[in-house]
Amino acid sequence: MKKQAKRRVGILGATGTVGQRVIHLLRNHPYFEVTALAASDRSEGKRFADVCNWKLPFEMPAKVKNIKVFACKPPLDCDVVISSLPSDIALEAEGAFAAAGYPVISNSSSYRMPEDVPLVVPEINPDHLDIIPYQQKKRGYDKGYLVTNPNCTTIGLVMALAPLQAAFGLEAVMMTSMQAISGAGYPGVASMDIIDNVIPHIGGEEEKVECEPQKILGKCLRTKIVSAPFLVSAQCNRVPVQDGHLESVRVKLKKKATVEQVAEVLANYQGLPQELKLPSAPAHPIIVRTEKDRPQPRLDRDAENGMATVVGRISKDTIFDFKFTLISHNTVRGAAGAALLNAELLVAKGLL
Amino acid sequence: MKKQAKRRVGILGATGTVGQRVIHLLRNHPYFEVTALAASDRSEGKRFADVCNWKLPFEMPAKVKNIKVFACKPPLDCDVVISSLPSDIALEAEGAFAAAGYPVISNSSSYRMPEDVPLVVPEINPDHLDIIPYQQKKRGYDKGYLVTNPNCTTIGLVMALAPLQAAFGLEAVMMTSMQAISGAGYPGVASMDIIDNVIPHIGGEEEKVECEPQKILGKCLRTKIVSAPFLVSAQCNRVPVQDGHLESVRVKLKKKATVEQVAEVLANYQGLPQELKLPSAPAHPIIVRTEKDRPQPRLDRDAENGMATVVGRISKDTIFDFKFTLISHNTVRGAAGAALLNAELLVAKGLL
Amino acid sequence: MKKQAKRRVGILGATGTVGQRVIHLLRNHPYFEVTALAASDRSEGKRFADVCNWKLPFEMPAKVKNIKVFACKPPLDCDVVISSLPSDIALEAEGAFAAAGYPVISNSSSYRMPEDVPLVVPEINPDHLDIIPYQQKKRGYDKGYLVTNPNCTTIGLVMALAPLQAAFGLEAVMMTSMQAISGAGYPGVASMDIIDNVIPHIGGEEEKVECEPQKILGKCLRTKIVSAPFLVSAQCNRVPVQDGHLESVRVKLKKKATVEQVAEVLANYQGLPQELKLPSAPAHPIIVRTEKDRPQPRLDRDAENGMATVVGRISKDTIFDFKFTLISHNTVRGAAGAALLNAELLVAKGLL
Amino acid sequence: MKKQAKRRVGILGATGTVGQRVIHLLRNHPYFEVTALAASDRSEGKRFADVCNWKLPFEMPAKVKNIKVFACKPPLDCDVVISSLPSDIALEAEGAFAAAGYPVISNSSSYRMPEDVPLVVPEINPDHLDIIPYQQKKRGYDKGYLVTNPNCTTIGLVMALAPLQAAFGLEAVMMTSMQAISGAGYPGVASMDIIDNVIPHIGGEEEKVECEPQKILGKCLRTKIVSAPFLVSAQCNRVPVQDGHLESVRVKLKKKATVEQVAEVLANYQGLPQELKLPSAPAHPIIVRTEKDRPQPRLDRDAENGMATVVGRISKDTIFDFKFTLISHNTVRGAAGAALLNAELLVAKGLL
Repeated sequence: MKKQAKRRVGILGATGTVGQRVIHLLRNHPYFEVTALAASDRSEGKRFADVCNWKLPFEMPAKVKNIKVFACKPPLDCDVVISSLPSDIALEAEGAFAAAGYPVISNSSSYRMPEDVPLVVPEINPDHLDIIPYQQKKRGYDKGYLVTNPNCTTIGLVMALAPLQAAFGLEAVMMTSMQAISGAGYPGVASMDIIDNVIPHIGGEEEKVECEPQKILGKCLRTKIVSAPFLVSAQCNRVPVQDGHLESVRVKLKKKATVEQVAEVLANYQGLPQELKLPSAPAHPIIVRTEKDRPQPRLDRDAENGMATVVGRISKDTIFDFKFTLISHNTVRGAAGAALLNAELLVAKGLL
Repeated sequence: MKKQAKRRVGILGATGTVGQRVIHLLRNHPYFEVTALAASDRSEGKRFADVCNWKLPFEMPAKVKNIKVFACKPPLDCDVVISSLPSDIALEAEGAFAAAGYPVISNSSSYRMPEDVPLVVPEINPDHLDIIPYQQKKRGYDKGYLVTNPNCTTIGLVMALAPLQAAFGLEAVMMTSMQAISGAGYPGVASMDIIDNVIPHIGGEEEKVECEPQKILGKCLRTKIVSAPFLVSAQCNRVPVQDGHLESVRVKLKKKATVEQVAEVLANYQGLPQELKLPSAPAHPIIVRTEKDRPQPRLDRDAENGMATVVGRISKDTIFDFKFTLISHNTVRGAAGAALLNAELLVAKGLL
Repeated sequence: MKKQAKRRVGILGATGTVGQRVIHLLRNHPYFEVTALAASDRSEGKRFADVCNWKLPFEMPAKVKNIKVFACKPPLDCDVVISSLPSDIALEAEGAFAAAGYPVISNSSSYRMPEDVPLVVPEINPDHLDIIPYQQKKRGYDKGYLVTNPNCTTIGLVMALAPLQAAFGLEAVMMTSMQAISGAGYPGVASMDIIDNVIPHIGGEEEKVECEPQKILGKCLRTKIVSAPFLVSAQCNRVPVQDGHLESVRVKLKKKATVEQVAEVLANYQGLPQELKLPSAPAHPIIVRTEKDRPQPRLDRDAENGMATVVGRISKDTIFDFKFTLISHNTVRGAAGAALLNAELLVAKGLL
Repeated sequence: MKKQAKRRVGILGATGTVGQRVIHLLRNHPYFEVTALAASDRSEGKRFADVCNWKLPFEMPAKVKNIKVFACKPPLDCDVVISSLPSDIALEAEGAFAAAGYPVISNSSSYRMPEDVPLVVPEINPDHLDIIPYQQKKRGYDKGYLVTNPNCTTIGLVMALAPLQAAFGLEAVMMTSMQAISGAGYPGVASMDIIDNVIPHIGGEEEKVECEPQKILGKCLRTKIVSAPFLVSAQCNRVPVQDGHLESVRVKLKKKATVEQVAEVLANYQGLPQELKLPSAPAHPIIVRTEKDRPQPRLDRDAENGMATVVGRISKDTIFDFKFTLISHNTVRGAAGAALLNAELLVAKGLL
């Protein structure tokens, strides 16, 4: 890609857990620089450093400290907006930005399922971006548009499903998650609820995981995206882990396969971000481990800077065809990094 | 039951996590008193209080402190033996005690699957004890015999499956566990492996859970116990929780049912221990909770003194028929309490 | 004490962590029954079971479930009020109840330090209740009055200091705490702040611990309570523990003593609650353990139903005279149980 | 320093927690390359990758995977030895290497206190290396010698004490630690002992912390190192934290000072490693934070790649002069990084 001025990024929900990750990931980015920060009304007009309760184990980048925080409505001084707003606020705010001419790259759930909005994982379905002109026309957007990335639990799962679907066809998927507390934001999960404990409920999570993978692995027609027809069942649990969603998965495939073939198809998976060498693309989107007790959140969540899905314990299942365990970093690949990789893909495709 | 002298109990593996629980549960028992303690060779000949690294949040009962520890081989000064030996040692030791005339109530895995050894959950299959005379004959035991209880992960699961099988028939069961560290004994799981982490592997556990429920829910014929024909798939994980195994379960049934029917059948479940009012029997072997975020290990593991299985989140599954979450206290109902309830049942049946 | 009708208790802050403990401790109390529950305005008028997010690992007592919640202002249908309100609200609310004729037994910090309000630990300074008539006169209360119990970190410390002061005299005390999350209430500490972490700050805690022990160990004159003159230094930390405040303590004494003498004086400590056999009084207010790695929160917090202070690791200090470690259950002896023991003492003294 | 061949390093205790950190820190080092690995006898003769239970959340460096593991005795194919052996083995093994002509940089406790062995923190007492010629003469070593670094709890403490001693003089230091589990090695602390718990005992730790700081801050005479005369009192606790030792500290100084002066003296501290720009030297060996709730293990342990000591909560103490909280990464600055910085200093001084 030819050298050109960096795109100016505005971050909606900048003070949140994911917003902070986006800021951290953009601290030295070749394509982007952060020029605008927006958050809830009570932060408006103040220095970012004064309103953000920074919770990452890295220092807040010096260049954002003095940025004045704006409300989450247009205009903002930027070329593109990355949003990680709570879904109740996102619907209105993100729509307003798109209508006002801003490309909106959203980590929120509000626009993931409409048929005219692409739900994109760059390795899997970059072609779904082809719906954008139709979306603009249908919604009456001029230059603005909406692109979304999946739920943090969906993304690790669908990353492992994509090569299986391509090679063997998917019939059904059972997924039981053990999710990190950072997925609930800050303050999020009360410590009294999670120390020496597991919470077998995460609001809205199972519903999202049960429909997003089919859309991502679906087809982009001219006027709508059609979900793939396999079934997903999800049971979602919260465990006392800082970062990294672990998932126990069983899959039923259409074609016969061996454990070795499944492992090989996963380990060799490559997509457009790898081909284009996008800055945030992991060299290996899926890492297959063969130790009997991997993957683990603490040891594997940061693989490929938190952008890889690590899969292990692949074996025959007694009911479905195969079972395995995977982990994906929920605030990196599952949120901030997902949005950023989408942004990089949009640049590479000339859409930003 | 008429008043009579207490049975004298010998505990094999007395210094272990489960052995300690057995001692605690027997501290004031109407049927039993602890008269003999046996453990590994290095403890032999010493006072129990001097060799046992007591890890329960209760005081060691005064009356066991001065008991001299013996090796795990007959004779022991007792009428019955409760064993929670590691499986590698249990095979030989338990067999030797049975051959020497002792009833052996075992929490170990060694003798769970032979067709002539009953694997008993008193609420579910007390009739499997009818195999004992055949077992004695086949193995050449005189007054001794072997009775086992299931793996700590099996028991919570099978407790919920039993009423479903009876009411609706079972076709298939998918279970993903989040298991407590106490299940691995002491020192067991290294803290570096589990703080801020989950381990997706527990040696031998999935194999046990995939065959034990079918035997427990099977039929006792004259010369063998025949497993029920439904399928079980297990994925077992270790989480940073002290006590209580949480399980995400999906079931496929033979007959149609509603969520309400499933909840009702579970909540109303009663068995022989309840009818006989055995001392350790929970008034309600299954407690159904309707809050959206229950059961939880910290809040529900001690229900009915740790002897109940608590079930919640019963709902329709997208692939199988129903999904739900359950918890069972792994060292109480899942081990020490299971053995003790078996012992009480044997007394009630006149076998002790 | 002669049999008489139970005192009717109103609980201010009934939905909070400490309020729940009070309700649990009063579920079967010989002197008291809960007749009124008060909490923040948004709970007003609703059933307790509908507004209380019950977080104890015991069931909510059936008899409080249907009690209607009132606002925290008089009148309430009760003879005495036990308050565990946040300190900002407590000042006005507790004063209003005392002025309206209710004895107020407070776990809040608002009235702990005024010279006319007794700060009572029944084993240590029951005579401080003698200030009540003066307090009533000075504040213009008729039958109402205020009695407080100490901060949850103070109480374990002062329990160990009292016998040392009596036997050897106290010059200075250095205390570093490792405090449980339940001390911050619910939701309290965010899990992202405490899993795999320690927070070296608890708002206002060090200041309280640095002045309360001297008042408790001080003298009650006719018109004021005068603090004892020793110095206390406190550093307070929050650790990932559900219940139980652990404290590393060094003391400088006025007289010489040996480790054995210190241990003996602590282990033999008895007070008026033990003499009167008050229902909540621990048989041994201080338990001295000699194992090298005790006390520990998980193993020792529940000693004597959470009402004992467990002390261990007593040894010579290189700078002060002695160092030791203690634990006290922060929501039992440190809050709900402290208020309840005060209430029992007031009954025994004819003040209720 | 002029470009020259890299020194070849042998690592004693290579499979341990600290050994793994040393290997990780040396993966791309400008001065050193790992050429030999030694561990306990049972690893002897095997590939490192086959015997090492790698526990770091980074991949094992490819170049060590195939190195054959030797026993911990000379000869080894290397120019210098970095040892992190258990102290019981270290005494003989390290002495044997020094006698055989190898410079030994030791993280073990065996040789820290002898008067002729320097206990070095490069920022504080690099001049203590001047004792080496005398040590060689006294012990009959030819080219070999022994250099040690302090205990992991000592080093964070002494880093903060050094500038205070220089500016104000030290009289007494009270330190209470909350130490990470990685300090106990692997498997180390059993998870049953530390989840929802604190252990108030770490074998030998308090004794080390009570004498090492005085030696480090002492004077190097011609034939011995003489400890500084201030007193240290230590109480050491283990908390459920993966990495990073947090310490609550009080200091009594010889001269008057203000909080601002203390903060300034700490924040401005610089030493020889900073002047020489040694590869592992932190730009700021001490970072002073002013937020009321910092430092925290999770957020501050990795400051300056784990080589900085982070100090916060500096305030007046009620008994001593000042109190503050500090954190230091126990396996980086407290062990592997300490040894490595000593090695770099030895290169810079021409001793390697």
